[in-house]
Amino acid sequence: MKTFQEMSRQELEEMRGELTARFEEIKAEGLKLDMSRGKPAPEQLDTAMPLLNVLNAESDMQAENGTDCRNYGLMDGLPEAKRLIAEMLETKPENVIVDGNASLSLMFDTVSHSVTHGVCGSTPWCKLDHVKFLCPAPGYDRHFRVTEYFGIEMITIPMTEDGPDMDLVEKYVQEDESVKGIWCVPKYSNPQGYTYSDETVRRFANLKPAARDFRIYWDNAYCIHDLYEDKQDTLLEILAECEKAGNPDLVFEFASTSKISFAGAGVSAVASSPKNLEWFKKAMTVQTIGPDKINQLRHVRYYKDRAGLKAQMMKNSALIRPKFELVLEMLKEELEGLGIGRWTNPLGGYFISFDAVEGCAKAIVAKCKEGGMVLTGAGATYPYGVDPKDSNIRIAPSYPSLAEMKEATKLFILCVKLVSIDKILEQI
Amino acid sequence: MKTFQEMSRQELEEMRGELTARFEEIKAEGLKLDMSRGKPAPEQLDTAMPLLNVLNAESDMQAENGTDCRNYGLMDGLPEAKRLIAEMLETKPENVIVDGNASLSLMFDTVSHSVTHGVCGSTPWCKLDHVKFLCPAPGYDRHFRVTEYFGIEMITIPMTEDGPDMDLVEKYVQEDESVKGIWCVPKYSNPQGYTYSDETVRRFANLKPAARDFRIYWDNAYCIHDLYEDKQDTLLEILAECEKAGNPDLVFEFASTSKISFAGAGVSAVASSPKNLEWFKKAMTVQTIGPDKINQLRHVRYYKDRAGLKAQMMKNSALIRPKFELVLEMLKEELEGLGIGRWTNPLGGYFISFDAVEGCAKAIVAKCKEGGMVLTGAGATYPYGVDPKDSNIRIAPSYPSLAEMKEATKLFILCVKLVSIDKILEQI
Repeated sequence: MKTFQEMSRQELEEMRGELTARFEEIKAEGLKLDMSRGKPAPEQLDTAMPLLNVLNAESDMQAENGTDCRNYGLMDGLPEAKRLIAEMLETKPENVIVDGNASLSLMFDTVSHSVTHGVCGSTPWCKLDHVKFLCPAPGYDRHFRVTEYFGIEMITIPMTEDGPDMDLVEKYVQEDESVKGIWCVPKYSNPQGYTYSDETVRRFANLKPAARDFRIYWDNAYCIHDLYEDKQDTLLEILAECEKAGNPDLVFEFASTSKISFAGAGVSAVASSPKNLEWFKKAMTVQTIGPDKINQLRHVRYYKDRAGLKAQMMKNSALIRPKFELVLEMLKEELEGLGIGRWTNPLGGYFISFDAVEGCAKAIVAKCKEGGMVLTGAGATYPYGVDPKDSNIRIAPSYPSLAEMKEATKLFILCVKLVSIDKILEQI
Repeated sequence: MKTFQEMSRQELEEMRGELTARFEEIKAEGLKLDMSRGKPAPEQLDTAMPLLNVLNAESDMQAENGTDCRNYGLMDGLPEAKRLIAEMLETKPENVIVDGNASLSLMFDTVSHSVTHGVCGSTPWCKLDHVKFLCPAPGYDRHFRVTEYFGIEMITIPMTEDGPDMDLVEKYVQEDESVKGIWCVPKYSNPQGYTYSDETVRRFANLKPAARDFRIYWDNAYCIHDLYEDKQDTLLEILAECEKAGNPDLVFEFASTSKISFAGAGVSAVASSPKNLEWFKKAMTVQTIGPDKINQLRHVRYYKDRAGLKAQMMKNSALIRPKFELVLEMLKEELEGLGIGRWTNPLGGYFISFDAVEGCAKAIVAKCKEGGMVLTGAGATYPYGVDPKDSNIRIAPSYPSLAEMKEATKLFILCVKLVSIDKILEQI
């Protein structure tokens, strides 16, 4: 099989003719496909509906420590909710604060408190001329928007299959005092689905930051979000590694049940050292009268423990897995060996990352839109929304139905081919 | 009847002897009473339990605009939730954002966004040397803690039965550009239970602030929290008044259902002009993936409209009213005409405000503690926790049972008398 680059102008132009005709046919169908966000599909949410049966007007509303969950109090979460989340994150309940419905808010608040009040007694970032964050990329656009919002300078760190380029991370963190944080999605990373290797985690835990207010923002969003029961990535537990390394305060870990129970109606958590949590609670005492404990109670009574959460995830993945497999099979069948794209084969998480020929990502996303499909904006996976190679595209297969997914992938492949041909023809 | 001040040393000392004996008896009982916080009583929360029956595994989870409430999206709340809250606040749905479980967080966030990013394009407060807030006092301690947390200078404004001293408010707001806000609880104020008069509201709406980023923080926490069906205060709707006055962007109004449905598990809202809401949403877009829409749906389906909310409130007030009446009767019977205390007689809200002889509040609260009862810390109702006259005490009758309330009030009255005698004897 020839790669596109090996083909002659004539061959490419002929192919373009055929593909364009097919594209016009699809376009005429007036599709409305959406592969832009990592949203659970309705069928997936259906599997969590029994959660709504757990509490009713007759229920005992007391937490195990006697707290009336319908009243004020218990700012940092129910003891049993801390235990549940601790099991999920493989850490200790005393390392956990369980909060409201969104871990993104916890991340925003952590950065915001650092900007206005400084971290654990350090200078507030708003008083500093330079504050920088390291941003492994491709990464999660909502992370980058938080740091951009606060005017924090973002430095792109290349991703590898083992996690961020740790030589570069160590260099920046250990030499530059203005580097205050790094965004990480350590398991089934967004968008590549990579899981940090044990060595990467250990190198993180052993960082010797130049800034004493440097923290790792460890967004463990996909901690139990496996696609398979028998093939799963494993991630070394970071808080214990930090303790071992004599760096107990190095990490803020975040998680939620948004992609376990209901998206935006689950519970979220931050896990960290006692010292960091003390600092966080100082702000919480002013900011809130406490989280929705009724929803915490609902989750705890329904899921009970780690096994309960994992059982829910297996229901979810039974629905997501075929979509991932379909996309990956089609990509393999239609694009492998053509030299116009590489993609990841994740075992969990919500995304597949696609790298097109350099300079083609924006054009592919635009072409897909023309054909009736919304993709995540090209560049979104990079700080400031700018992918220097204009190559990365995030594919989110979870939301559409299997049938829509097939249509969507067909269109995507067509657009990749068309845009790549144009690019190559330009360069011949 | 003689006032305490008119009594002789001998009379006072004799009385002290008797009262001390009674105090020691009560102390020996080892009571554990709590009149410190405005918490709903368990029986009150029981009346809201049917709310938990509204949604179950079989429920239709679509909002009226087709949004699946179990999934991400709709950052500013369900349309029907906006309508419900708008009815409660007597404003328009387009003026409302419905958010998570706590209006305190919305207030904190509003101040925090102003500190880091400025209000609607104005200079961020963290870049200014002086930022001041007016604090009508006695007032709500959690308000004052928010401004104190951000290092904002607080200026005490005396309260009258018609609201804050508006001459002083106008002077500060219109002459001092560093005055950026004022905390208000306009209806059944915390702790006095006063409702701002129409003239006060109109003077607020017609302020001509020196600072273009000055805003009124209108915490309408007790908007429908009446104790009686037939005797109710009414409050002029501020947003409409501001529009009439050509000052549409002057107010951020806050509210929640925490003291309607469940404390800490209700829904909260901010109401303001389109321009202010646009500004607020700009931060929200970064901070959150959206509120818990399932809980919003639950509230809307159960309460339906303003009448539904009011019906819930009448169930609540049937339980709170007797407690208020008991306290007020006992105070009247035991303290009226003695010259050692004045108190308010609110028609709604959660508190009674008690003014002791100057210099006695701290000692009374300490004496009550010795006798087995926790009260809100003396001074808490003033900025920085310092009541310059050491006179104001906040009484929160909602949480204890009627029987406990009787014990508590008996002890309170005893302590007021004992401490007042000591004070007067010092001065003879």
